[in-house]
Amino acid sequence: MFENSSNTDLSALGEFGLIDQITAPAKKVQQSTITGVGDDAAVIEAGDRYLLVSSDMLLEGVHFDLSYAPLKHLGYKAVVVNLSDIYAMNGTPRQITVNIGLSSKFSVEAVEEIYAGIYMACDQYQVDLIGGDTTASKAGLVLSVTAMGTVDKDKVAYRKGAKETDLICVTGDLGAAYMGLQVLEREKTVFKGNPEAQPDLEGFDYILERQLKPEAQRGLIEFFKERQIQPTSMIDVSDGLASELLHLCKAGEVGCQVYMQKIPIDHTTAQTADEFNINPLVAAMNGGEDYELLFTVPVTEHEKLQDVPGLHIIGHITENGSGAFMVDDAGNKSQITAQGWNAFAQ
Amino acid sequence: MFENSSNTDLSALGEFGLIDQITAPAKKVQQSTITGVGDDAAVIEAGDRYLLVSSDMLLEGVHFDLSYAPLKHLGYKAVVVNLSDIYAMNGTPRQITVNIGLSSKFSVEAVEEIYAGIYMACDQYQVDLIGGDTTASKAGLVLSVTAMGTVDKDKVAYRKGAKETDLICVTGDLGAAYMGLQVLEREKTVFKGNPEAQPDLEGFDYILERQLKPEAQRGLIEFFKERQIQPTSMIDVSDGLASELLHLCKAGEVGCQVYMQKIPIDHTTAQTADEFNINPLVAAMNGGEDYELLFTVPVTEHEKLQDVPGLHIIGHITENGSGAFMVDDAGNKSQITAQGWNAFAQ
Repeated sequence: MFENSSNTDLSALGEFGLIDQITAPAKKVQQSTITGVGDDAAVIEAGDRYLLVSSDMLLEGVHFDLSYAPLKHLGYKAVVVNLSDIYAMNGTPRQITVNIGLSSKFSVEAVEEIYAGIYMACDQYQVDLIGGDTTASKAGLVLSVTAMGTVDKDKVAYRKGAKETDLICVTGDLGAAYMGLQVLEREKTVFKGNPEAQPDLEGFDYILERQLKPEAQRGLIEFFKERQIQPTSMIDVSDGLASELLHLCKAGEVGCQVYMQKIPIDHTTAQTADEFNINPLVAAMNGGEDYELLFTVPVTEHEKLQDVPGLHIIGHITENGSGAFMVDDAGNKSQITAQGWNAFAQ
Repeated sequence: MFENSSNTDLSALGEFGLIDQITAPAKKVQQSTITGVGDDAAVIEAGDRYLLVSSDMLLEGVHFDLSYAPLKHLGYKAVVVNLSDIYAMNGTPRQITVNIGLSSKFSVEAVEEIYAGIYMACDQYQVDLIGGDTTASKAGLVLSVTAMGTVDKDKVAYRKGAKETDLICVTGDLGAAYMGLQVLEREKTVFKGNPEAQPDLEGFDYILERQLKPEAQRGLIEFFKERQIQPTSMIDVSDGLASELLHLCKAGEVGCQVYMQKIPIDHTTAQTADEFNINPLVAAMNGGEDYELLFTVPVTEHEKLQDVPGLHIIGHITENGSGAFMVDDAGNKSQITAQGWNAFAQ
């Protein structure tokens, strides 16, 4: 009974284009809304601190494949990807709500496995599960999590705020979750061709764990507190380093320059990428699902960041209009473009 | 790769049984968590007030049917059902986040229709859309909304709190949304048999609107403020009056008695129920999706509730262990049982 006079494919806009379009009419009528759409989490006035709110949804067949994702890990991951957004605002997660849609093929025991993972994440990150919705689904498993956290008003870190000469830093290593996914997809294909085949996952532990059971970077927020560092901008790496660098540049109205040899890539990631004939740098720049934190700090903080394990200074912020560039070993510059992840591509 | 040693059907537990089972391990580690799972909204410490959080999910094929639900109404409804939970705590909704899963059959224009409904609800109820997630879905439209609101600490109304002799009150009328759904389902069946058929919806405006574009009872919260009334317990009517009465009794450890002739049923609802050979009382007691508010107040507040349009005193609270009963015109008592809605029944 509902018809459209015109029809524009979602893939024509892409995820970010669609978000821009549908959030354009958003108004702010509540005084307590500090910032809404457009950052890792929304910011709400809550007494002497800010409340942070972030919500993400994982759908079967899009974000995960039940043929290889253990349910417990899936529950864990659904929580962690949301907590990552709270940390990306320099905040501390406190509570989560979980909405779950279950098809009738699920048993009570299977649902308990998912919740075992959810509670494991609650325990690990010290957050409380405070509510949600449980419903039937005709269409596969749906996990929609909302995370709430708090941050001191003078400590909140937005995507915007990076200034020329600021150092660009990233935690951990990049591209591992993407290569883990490639291994899982390969084994699934093998299994489909020969159901007797045993999955060959040996030696891939690290990258598989990065894909199936990622962690959020709580340690960085504690490090900032200890060393009294205030990042000028921050974002979590969910869509790949390239996409996130461009977010920081766009939000901060600045350019950036990062150094190829500084991009942290684990040796298992690099080895696996070789095996798959994928450039490891592409996995790091465009793979996504790393849930590391990318941030900028004033160059004057350089000393405080020296020799910190798992922390990498990968470049610096440049003036507005200078563009976003990667510099290779020979000093050649190439422009950074975000393939990111077009959720609506066929 | 994931196997269960035992398999219990979800339908064996039902929705409430499943919720009890999966939320049993929930712990509270955060001081700021006042109450978690088990009420219309969770309650979080937020300075000198409480923050209320509620989250609900609507799934295609389960909660709505796109063959008759206009997309704009659907967006509106997805917001309203969440705001209803905030009002049910005697709170004022302030912000929402919206997670949406879209199959590739949706056009940009169709998505804009959904958001037009979302923004219409934001405007109507003065809430801000502050974030969310937009993603592809392989499995129909998914709308997961989280609503946040505030309430003065001494004004929060829980499901628990009803005391013996308290009056039981409900806003508006009941069973209309359920009868609206019956009409829509009938016309869909006719249309399937004969695609040339025009839907016969004349005269059903009220009950159709109650199903497709329900409203939340903001007026009651304002009324409480004006008249300085503090409800002793409150819940919104989403699963049918019977189910909600039993929730208030269980949470408050009390019994209840309600009077058949006091149950508010609109004449269109009653007429349509007759047409469908459904007892209108069954529609009111077990239909659901009314989004009215059911609450209790001390009997001493009786005067303040007299002659208030759209407010109905339907019974009173009885002592613990006395059970939940409906009294008919002849004085016969029948026990109230909740069919509610078993989301997992086949």
